[in-house]
Amino acid sequence: MAETHYDLIIIGGGPAGLTAGMYASRARLNTVLVEKVATGGQILITDWIENYPGFPEGISGPDLSDKMLEQARQFDLQFEYGEVEKVELEGAVKSITIGDKVLTAKAVIITTGASPRSLHVGEEKFHGKGVSYCATCDGPFYKDKTVVAVGGGDTAVQESLYLTKFAKKVHLVHRRDQLRAAKILQERALANDKIDMVWDSVVTGMDGLFGVENVTVKNVKTNEETKIAAAGCFIWIGILPNTDFLGNALEMDEWNFIKADANMATSIPGVFAAGDVRSTPLRQIATAVGDSAIAAISAEHYIEGH
Amino acid sequence: MAETHYDLIIIGGGPAGLTAGMYASRARLNTVLVEKVATGGQILITDWIENYPGFPEGISGPDLSDKMLEQARQFDLQFEYGEVEKVELEGAVKSITIGDKVLTAKAVIITTGASPRSLHVGEEKFHGKGVSYCATCDGPFYKDKTVVAVGGGDTAVQESLYLTKFAKKVHLVHRRDQLRAAKILQERALANDKIDMVWDSVVTGMDGLFGVENVTVKNVKTNEETKIAAAGCFIWIGILPNTDFLGNALEMDEWNFIKADANMATSIPGVFAAGDVRSTPLRQIATAVGDSAIAAISAEHYIEGH
Repeated sequence: MAETHYDLIIIGGGPAGLTAGMYASRARLNTVLVEKVATGGQILITDWIENYPGFPEGISGPDLSDKMLEQARQFDLQFEYGEVEKVELEGAVKSITIGDKVLTAKAVIITTGASPRSLHVGEEKFHGKGVSYCATCDGPFYKDKTVVAVGGGDTAVQESLYLTKFAKKVHLVHRRDQLRAAKILQERALANDKIDMVWDSVVTGMDGLFGVENVTVKNVKTNEETKIAAAGCFIWIGILPNTDFLGNALEMDEWNFIKADANMATSIPGVFAAGDVRSTPLRQIATAVGDSAIAAISAEHYIEGH
Repeated sequence: MAETHYDLIIIGGGPAGLTAGMYASRARLNTVLVEKVATGGQILITDWIENYPGFPEGISGPDLSDKMLEQARQFDLQFEYGEVEKVELEGAVKSITIGDKVLTAKAVIITTGASPRSLHVGEEKFHGKGVSYCATCDGPFYKDKTVVAVGGGDTAVQESLYLTKFAKKVHLVHRRDQLRAAKILQERALANDKIDMVWDSVVTGMDGLFGVENVTVKNVKTNEETKIAAAGCFIWIGILPNTDFLGNALEMDEWNFIKADANMATSIPGVFAAGDVRSTPLRQIATAVGDSAIAAISAEHYIEGH
């Protein structure tokens, strides 16, 4: 197997990974960023960002991702694309296997982010046929149609509002009798006559011949089930950390987010974590870039000392 | 005294304060930001920022500050200008006195940043007459002149490089025999023939009739003193937290930076700290905005629960 040695390997190419890569490369560390599919991460499926400081006019997720990629490249950050098959994090030399390549380094920063949680009602068979986790990607397919949305947090409400640009009606199903989202979003959703709140309810199934035609919703107080005729079902009920590839290598919290201290150091010396994959009170682009600047400088200090 | 009540008071208008203000206002908290002089903080004296994620072409400090201010204003953040004379942080209602105004709120976020450390060799009498802490502000006054710079960290080296745009020679005085700055900056400084490194040395005094004419430098190994003929002296030897106005109200670290947990909560319930003023391993715009997003959301949660 081809083996290449670096100072630092960064796993994951969202805002956290790109920021860590930019800081580390600028600090003249020989750094490679390993990405499974395409850089950008979760922000690629974010339509419009109005709360990343420095962009008063707002910016699209893909545009911000492009800018961060360009900025990291200016300091000669290197890239490898592929799925991480094996990690060895203990000891002075860490190694990562991707296909027939082995990458080794003195330090590793994990910035693999997190993925949307599934409803587990068999929605997988409707992937690409009516079930979506991304209004930006799929919203335009539902012009003048009725859709169901699931969730009650910021993402669910923000994405439901976005859906109203296309759909004629959005039935927003939430298991409680009030939303968890920021007040400003709640106000906008409740004032939007294209959004119909389906309180105290959960989705229990969906059916259709070639794609979603009906979404079954159960009221958790009355146990009554109702079929809502809908061409699509958008699911925003939380996120899961992308940490399966790590096995039990690192100390995690109860939801399998990686525990890291104020220096972004994990339970293994020379291994750092930053961004959504970390156990943290808030997951925003702003917090991802803050974490990652710290992780890169911590990795530099660690490498200088080893 | 006129008394005005808010949900949240933010003290300090640098990137941390503006970000906290933007997040809090967007979350529909009735929020006022209190600033002593002008919003922007330390970045106002930063010429060029190339490592704030999202700006691959770089951005000037004042321009980034303007963008953050505009963004915060879009969500109706309010502003009060003046020096904080009195703070009462304990209890359910916090109060801040500025001149003849008393502002009260359920929660407070402190983002007062930090200030440059003084040499304490009587340089104050040359303030505005040759002594400066800001190459961006004062560099152009030293076109084709010789200046002394003091320090060995990122700021000292970055600002010395900036000075070479104007000065014909920069004598960089550092108390050790190697720089602490990031390697990429060290390399640039050592390769720049306008920069003369004065190793193992400290500034012990300065003299001149109407302004700085000579800077006295002592070699700490030989104790030999030398006068360097220079029209200016730029001082970058560290930063001090702007926490004097707080007295002993909050728990601090040994350098008087405010201790705050992962939620940016301080030792007093309802009082949060973010940015350079916080005890933290790294002080960057990226970390300031990350901290502040968390502080604002933590403040919102605190206020919702009280």
